[in-house]
Amino acid sequence: MARSSGGTPTGSGERDLARFVGRIGLVDHHCHGVLRDPLDRAGFESWLCEADGPGRWHGSLFDTQVGLAVRRFCAAPLGLAPHAGADTYLARRVELGPDEVARRLLRGAGISEFLVDTGFRADGLTTPDELAVRAGAPAREIVRLESVAEQVMVGRGAAEFALACRDALASAAATAVAFKSIAGYRVGLDLAPYRPAENEVVNAVARWASAVERGSPVRLADETLTRFLIWTAVDLGLPIQFHTGYGDADADLGRCDPLLLTPLLRATAGRGVPIMLLHTYPFHRHAAYLAQVFDHVFVDVGLAVQNVGTGAGRVLAELLELAPLRSVLFSTDGCGLPELFLVGAELFRRALSAFLVTGLADGAWSYRDAERIASLIAAGNARRAYLLD
Amino acid sequence: MARSSGGTPTGSGERDLARFVGRIGLVDHHCHGVLRDPLDRAGFESWLCEADGPGRWHGSLFDTQVGLAVRRFCAAPLGLAPHAGADTYLARRVELGPDEVARRLLRGAGISEFLVDTGFRADGLTTPDELAVRAGAPAREIVRLESVAEQVMVGRGAAEFALACRDALASAAATAVAFKSIAGYRVGLDLAPYRPAENEVVNAVARWASAVERGSPVRLADETLTRFLIWTAVDLGLPIQFHTGYGDADADLGRCDPLLLTPLLRATAGRGVPIMLLHTYPFHRHAAYLAQVFDHVFVDVGLAVQNVGTGAGRVLAELLELAPLRSVLFSTDGCGLPELFLVGAELFRRALSAFLVTGLADGAWSYRDAERIASLIAAGNARRAYLLD
Amino acid sequence: MARSSGGTPTGSGERDLARFVGRIGLVDHHCHGVLRDPLDRAGFESWLCEADGPGRWHGSLFDTQVGLAVRRFCAAPLGLAPHAGADTYLARRVELGPDEVARRLLRGAGISEFLVDTGFRADGLTTPDELAVRAGAPAREIVRLESVAEQVMVGRGAAEFALACRDALASAAATAVAFKSIAGYRVGLDLAPYRPAENEVVNAVARWASAVERGSPVRLADETLTRFLIWTAVDLGLPIQFHTGYGDADADLGRCDPLLLTPLLRATAGRGVPIMLLHTYPFHRHAAYLAQVFDHVFVDVGLAVQNVGTGAGRVLAELLELAPLRSVLFSTDGCGLPELFLVGAELFRRALSAFLVTGLADGAWSYRDAERIASLIAAGNARRAYLLD
Repeated sequence: MARSSGGTPTGSGERDLARFVGRIGLVDHHCHGVLRDPLDRAGFESWLCEADGPGRWHGSLFDTQVGLAVRRFCAAPLGLAPHAGADTYLARRVELGPDEVARRLLRGAGISEFLVDTGFRADGLTTPDELAVRAGAPAREIVRLESVAEQVMVGRGAAEFALACRDALASAAATAVAFKSIAGYRVGLDLAPYRPAENEVVNAVARWASAVERGSPVRLADETLTRFLIWTAVDLGLPIQFHTGYGDADADLGRCDPLLLTPLLRATAGRGVPIMLLHTYPFHRHAAYLAQVFDHVFVDVGLAVQNVGTGAGRVLAELLELAPLRSVLFSTDGCGLPELFLVGAELFRRALSAFLVTGLADGAWSYRDAERIASLIAAGNARRAYLLD
Repeated sequence: MARSSGGTPTGSGERDLARFVGRIGLVDHHCHGVLRDPLDRAGFESWLCEADGPGRWHGSLFDTQVGLAVRRFCAAPLGLAPHAGADTYLARRVELGPDEVARRLLRGAGISEFLVDTGFRADGLTTPDELAVRAGAPAREIVRLESVAEQVMVGRGAAEFALACRDALASAAATAVAFKSIAGYRVGLDLAPYRPAENEVVNAVARWASAVERGSPVRLADETLTRFLIWTAVDLGLPIQFHTGYGDADADLGRCDPLLLTPLLRATAGRGVPIMLLHTYPFHRHAAYLAQVFDHVFVDVGLAVQNVGTGAGRVLAELLELAPLRSVLFSTDGCGLPELFLVGAELFRRALSAFLVTGLADGAWSYRDAERIASLIAAGNARRAYLLD
Repeated sequence: MARSSGGTPTGSGERDLARFVGRIGLVDHHCHGVLRDPLDRAGFESWLCEADGPGRWHGSLFDTQVGLAVRRFCAAPLGLAPHAGADTYLARRVELGPDEVARRLLRGAGISEFLVDTGFRADGLTTPDELAVRAGAPAREIVRLESVAEQVMVGRGAAEFALACRDALASAAATAVAFKSIAGYRVGLDLAPYRPAENEVVNAVARWASAVERGSPVRLADETLTRFLIWTAVDLGLPIQFHTGYGDADADLGRCDPLLLTPLLRATAGRGVPIMLLHTYPFHRHAAYLAQVFDHVFVDVGLAVQNVGTGAGRVLAELLELAPLRSVLFSTDGCGLPELFLVGAELFRRALSAFLVTGLADGAWSYRDAERIASLIAAGNARRAYLLD
């Protein structure tokens, strides 16, 4: 990206900057655990991107940007030549076993700390502590609001549900570093911007309990209870992460546009609680706007970065159009496959480096500013927002 | 685009790849016929882009990306210097006559097969057979659902409309390669995701017939009947194309966001019928997401490519962020002017080449992968989806 | 951006073109006045972008693209080294005083004419005449519809409101160059596409007057009255500017998508009145589509250009995908800080130059076309649309 030729002080500054960003430790402020058990090819492909798995019409999901990026970046750490074929790659994976693969790929990612959402498929995935052992770096827990509510419903039913939920969340807040909501998946982000009244909560709990009694799965998909959980979390003072944008076909992408959260963001401004807009792609410019006009809003393009592959530089640059440089975070949303952590970190570092080096070469900022911005986005903003120190 | 200097093996790979993509035969999976009659300047401009024609405020539509691209790419095949002025270009066009112009430009496009929507302005445009003769390449028919319904209404009225429609579509399916719906133009893409009941169809037909009797034009713009047609097409097993995104001012662009089709795509998954999202721009990232999460969804940026001109590389790259490489198709949406086929094909090849060569130079994929991806997007995906072989 | 090496005729054409665009006089078709009084750091930051000011979570707003751009481009005109620190920069600003700072930065912007919206914070900002003196270039007035209506309500109340409004707007039209509506901020852009009936206006005025009597601020936020003002403006024949897209947190960005104006644009086509879509980002591709299909629609990416900083080239290129080259305008939306005029003009010229030089180097257009397009976008389109000559 650097336009100047080598040898000049500018050119050397660009190389130094690229090296600096290439080695920077990243705080992954939103991820999940990795799978403990081995996978066959169809299983591997089902965790690779947001498709359910390989299919009749599109065939193998290795023919995606993320599939190509796995073959590009993950072959070498497993002792293969870059771009090794999918079957070769998967055979080597089996040979090494899940723990050794996870160890190699997670350590190769250069992530210095993991914030782990434990509310998704908790049975098959590593706990934060198990992830930390494999990665050789600390991991802290993010508690999913909807999962807590569902556990309360399973454990005690409707009786004193609100009180029990508040207790469970307060107890979680003692050790967790943040809360997360998947409102986008369950009811969409078009949430009324106020705390529901107690009787509204009681009625919503009764409706839900009655549906469960009639055989519905214990799955929270109620707008009133979602708001009850969010405002309870606001009271507890931890940052709250929201799924927005890109995800699997369970959600309607159109209901996950972060702009739909505007009234809630207005209502929570000045409450001392940071709100994290996750993923945000393809609405990342919308999210960046929200991060500019609301001081308590932070944004990332996690999950998208590894999925868009060679497009990561463009996507990050688009986020950095309006988002204040002190509002941007790094995450992988890595889940199941350790490959996703390595690919996400590698592509993010390259995207950030390209952005900063291009600007430096063009005279848009000084070397000192560039290094400072890199440190903020890689880790400093997350440390400040989550009070990690 | 290639960053390596010439002479190295990598540089030579990039040149080979650019040459490979530059010569690849394209399957144009969605286009129309060309005009049989000559055009004056205002007439030519009215077919050039999605504006009605030159106007008081914007003046000549040659001052658009597509206008500049016509002067860039089409002057030489007509024996003029590139960037010849509009009047010179049009005078030469008159001199050669419509058939010779069509022959030169269509053959220059390097399209190996045409799938032709015959439902738009069928009177003035060439049939698929006539197009094939001019282009020297085979052409097959795509049948527009709304046109069939309108022919049935004209021919027989409301009596046994559903049955007659089913028969007409089944008969069309015997020779056509796909169906197409312009629901986006007529009722928007926010379609209920289920087949209407017979009595709902009967009532909708009665309403329509009564409007026609009172003097309304025979124009299908009814959500229920649109769904009836779509599900009848699903039963017949052919791929179904949907107009989405960019088009003329007859449609509200906001009602053509392919995300509005999400419920219908969920409902048709596993029915064995590919759904093609046409154009998609400026919602091509939305469409690419749908192509990732729904195995039966295929996408293109046809029509947009020639209109965005020098932006074609960026637009295609954005589509290729999330869309599986086996879900992306080529089309021109060429209509009326043979120029649009040549410009669309030329800009698409350059965009695809830039995407693949940049990735090759950057180490994102191997030469072999790049060549394979080029073949899939240029023709292979269309051959698989439409069962062309 | 130019790919050719220097010394060749092509390379020399590219350098000539870059020089031509770098010196071109710009018509700023939408801006505000600058502040008359000095500012402390928090005050300066509150005018810098669309955030309210520095905050607990994001800290200083100098860590934004626009903050970096101010330090890049405005330090030298004030006699500092580029990228001077924020405190140094602001100290120098105090030293020179507001008028001298304004004089240096406004004259450095290379803007040949200003069209000034006088409807925002009229008390603290310079009038068009005062701006003209500081900038050494003429300035003309744009009258904000909502402000006129509010002045009428304050001055006379509900009695014969419609008549008084019509008179006030007709009187304004005698000297103003255009009208502007902030419907996006007040009621959203989803406006019914017809003129309200007289009795609807009377009822709406009565509702508003009654709210004011009960103590509400005199702030017009009524859809019917907004339409009354717009159609009154249409009758008067002046161009009408609409706030669309990006702005501060007072507006819901989702209600400012210019596509929402589609029905109104259809209704006003052929009325002889140009409609200007301001800002448009991040919906600039939507706006560009509207500019293609509606001859009377003009577009810009003002305000966005300085805020997206190093992204300005990409944003302008995206606008130029579909927008006819004779529909694109320049504006800064500069307001309060003279820095915003200089940064906006500088980044716009660089973006336009990069777009045109890249295309020239790639053979997309001739030198002559490129120079002509630059002149149209910099000034010619505005001169034609506003009848400035």
